[in-house]
Formats: sequence, structure tokens, C-alpha cells
Amino acid sequence: MGENDLLEQFLSVAIEAAKKAGEIIRKGFHEKKNVEHKGQVDLVTETDKACEDLIFNHLKQHFPDHKFIGEETTAANGTTELTDHPTWIIDPLDGTTNFVHGFPFVCVSIGLTIGKVPTVGVVYNPIINELFTGVRGKGAFLNETPIKVSSQTELVKSLLATEVGTKRDKSTVDATTNRINSLLFKVRSLRMSGSCALNLCGIACGRLDLFYELGFGGPWDVAGGAVIVQEAGGLVFDPSGKEFDITSQRVAASNPYVKDAFVQALKEAE
Amino acid sequence: MGENDLLEQFLSVAIEAAKKAGEIIRKGFHEKKNVEHKGQVDLVTETDKACEDLIFNHLKQHFPDHKFIGEETTAANGTTELTDHPTWIIDPLDGTTNFVHGFPFVCVSIGLTIGKVPTVGVVYNPIINELFTGVRGKGAFLNETPIKVSSQTELVKSLLATEVGTKRDKSTVDATTNRINSLLFKVRSLRMSGSCALNLCGIACGRLDLFYELGFGGPWDVAGGAVIVQEAGGLVFDPSGKEFDITSQRVAASNPYVKDAFVQALKEAE
Repeated sequence: MGENDLLEQFLSVAIEAAKKAGEIIRKGFHEKKNVEHKGQVDLVTETDKACEDLIFNHLKQHFPDHKFIGEETTAANGTTELTDHPTWIIDPLDGTTNFVHGFPFVCVSIGLTIGKVPTVGVVYNPIINELFTGVRGKGAFLNETPIKVSSQTELVKSLLATEVGTKRDKSTVDATTNRINSLLFKVRSLRMSGSCALNLCGIACGRLDLFYELGFGGPWDVAGGAVIVQEAGGLVFDPSGKEFDITSQRVAASNPYVKDAFVQALKEAE
Repeated sequence: MGENDLLEQFLSVAIEAAKKAGEIIRKGFHEKKNVEHKGQVDLVTETDKACEDLIFNHLKQHFPDHKFIGEETTAANGTTELTDHPTWIIDPLDGTTNFVHGFPFVCVSIGLTIGKVPTVGVVYNPIINELFTGVRGKGAFLNETPIKVSSQTELVKSLLATEVGTKRDKSTVDATTNRINSLLFKVRSLRMSGSCALNLCGIACGRLDLFYELGFGGPWDVAGGAVIVQEAGGLVFDPSGKEFDITSQRVAASNPYVKDAFVQALKEAE
């Protein structure tokens, strides 16, 4: 099988897994939830676990030699090191707080890295039925229609997304709101929707112009969205402007035109 | 015609108007927009104007003796005083920034006050096809299914929504981010979706537990949502805890259980 065929197969199996998990999420979304607490704001639901099992099983059945990193598994077994081996990095339910509250920004995020490079991405919001996909070198799509990042060139006309995260110590919260204060003078407006993966997809389809998040959960929040942004013509980078590191729990994304001004504004916000 | 029949007629005509306007919004949402600028962040689109004309014409045809207040008309002709007369208060397109950027939280908001009391409310998001309705004494509905506010009793488990508004002078921005800073220590997380009317509906259907906004555009942002919240079992009040004044450009909403703690947290955030 040629490389192209392989990538297509990876994508189609990942979409199958995302859609199956999406059915579980959609069902749970409208029912009463049994929620466990991991700290004050970090919620893990039964749905989360059921979806991770389903996705892992489906992918392992097709790709038994691949490696796997998942939010739930990592939470239970500790960090799994990312290697050059083809590795599926999965957030079975991004936006768990939204899920618990019934706020319709939840998704399955599935990413495949090869040589540590995000190569296949599938992000599926089963509540409003939006399937974002991207394959390295082959473009990005929303429900099979090609998408591209915005053409915005001015910060002052840009819509910014970020999140307040789950940490509530004073220094984190102060840093978060000071950064927002500084940025508000420079951008059009601010959105917080509670899903890192969907924020990346918002950049990819041009709904959002700027996104950054610091201190999110792990590579599963960004592995799917990163390649979708890149294939939509966007850039994924460290908020400092340096190269994106999928394991760093720091991410920023924008179109290419507004990136330098965005990085400068982020620096001035520190 | 009895009072009940009258209210039903008001509702059904308002739904017709909202759905017609929604078609225009849905069409424009996916097309390139011709945007006029009113200041840095306040956008008014052709769609906005077309929708207001359509809604006014539809309602006036059925209720020629009623009074009308609309965002666009007020912007053009100055403030219209709210009287005890039956008065339709309309935001033809709430979430104009979202509309311009293609972020799917936009809606038509139609409210009817009688004796200055919000009596009929219709809020329609044509992009994700959610129609929220409420009639005083007759309950609140999402796509014809009854809705109710959350049963959350603890601030620390509550999902808060607010907006950063459009003013970018230092004292407003500082007040906005200081308030957020204070509240973040007390609530689970924060959402900003860019539509006051949809935030109220989020409270009504229990997706959100707490909402406040200061300094929004006018009564058209809240006239439709207020009765929907109240009929879903929620409370609409001034952020100080005092009685809600539809003309004050200040609003807060929550379920009844968490209101006192929310008002206290808002006071401590000043």
C-alpha cells in the first residue's frame, strides 16, 4: 500500500472511531451524568472512559503495531513518552465541563503523529454535527467541505479565543486575567468556549482569528487540531513565537498574516 | 379573543418573524459580508438591517396598534421610551461580531413587553437551529420541548458566562478583567460566546448556571431572553441583586438557588 493510501486508511479508521464515540457522547449529553471529580474543576465522566476504550479498541484492531496515548490512560498510568513511531493521541471527550453542563461545545479529538509530526487529525463535535479532518499534505475539511483560515491581517479586527483553564491558584489566575486585560486593548473581542480542540478547528475554518492556551491537559488536546489548522493554511506555534512542541502544554494558532502581531501582543501581555 | 389566545397569537406571529429573519441570517452567515463600522468593534451588517425591516413589517402587519423598539431604528432615530403599551423590542441579529466572523452563536431576539413586563420572548439561532420561546405564565421551550434552569446550588460547581463588551477605554477594561479575576476563584469555569440573548437562553436551559453583563447595547439584548429565563424557573436581576430594569443595560441571571451567592460574589468583585 502506498503512503497516500495508508494516510487515507488512517483517516477513515479514525473517522469511524470518532463517529462511534460521538454517538456515546450525544446520548450522554442529554442524560443525567455520573461525574467523578478530579480536583475542583477537572471532571471525568463515564462517557469519557467509554469513549476512550471504544476508540483505542477500534484503532488497535486496525493498527496493532501503532502506539497509543490517551488522556484517561495517561491519568491512570502516568505519562507515555512520545516517540517517532506512529502514535495515536486521543482525547475521547474534549470539553468535559461543557459536557457535564450541557454546553454544546464538546468533541472527540484523534490525532496521529508520525516522527512526532501531527499527520492525521479528526475532531468531531457530535452535538452540532461538525466533523473536522486534516491529513498532512492533503488539506483540511469541515463535513467534507474544504476549509481555510481567515484572511484577517489586523489584530484590531481579530476575534481571539482562549480559556481560563482549571487551575485556581492566585498566580495562575492573575497571570490569566492580566494577559486578557492587555490583549483586550488590541483585538476585536474574546471568546471562551471550553474546548481546546474546537478552538483550533475554529482557527482552521476562519471563525476565530487568534487562539492561545497555556497549561491545558496534554498533547491529546492539540494533536488532532494541529494538523487541521496547518492543512487549512494556518500556523500552530508556541505562544512565545517559537516552534510548537506538542508535549509542552502551550499552544497558539492563527493565520500566517497576523501571527507576528499576535506573538508581539502576547509578549507585551506577559 | 381571550388573553390566552392573544398571547398565543403574539407568540406564533413572533416565531414566524424570527424564522423568516433566521433564513436571511443563515444565508448571510455563509457568504461574504458587507460590513459597516460603528466604532472599532461595533459592527452592523446589511443582514441586520434587512432582518429588522422584515421583523417590524411582519409584526406591524398583525399588530398595527403596538409599539416597536429596535436596535437599528434606535441607532438611527435615538432612544424610544418604553411605555406600558404593548411594545415589541427587537434585536434582529444579536451576536453581530460572531456573524461577521462566522462563529455560530448568532440569533434573532424578539420580546414583547406589556405594562413594561416581558411577556413573550422568542430567541432563534438559525445556524444551529435552536428556537427558544417563553410566554409569561406558560413555560419556556427549546424547539418545543420544555426547558428549565439548572439545579446547581454551589457557586464552585457553576458555569459562568459573561462578555467583554465593545468598550476599550482603560477603566472599563480594567473593571471587566478585575471582576473576572475575582469571580474565577469562586466558580467552575467561564464562557464567553458573544450573544447576550443566547447567554440568557443558556441559563434558561441549564447549560449555564450564572450570567451577568454590564454595558450591553440596549433592551433589545434582554427583552426576549428575560421571559424565557423566568418561565424556565430562573431569575433575572440587576447584578447588584436589585430588581431587573430592562432599560438599564445591566443584567444578571441564574437559577433561584445560587442567586444570593452569585450576587454576593459580584459585590465582592467590585
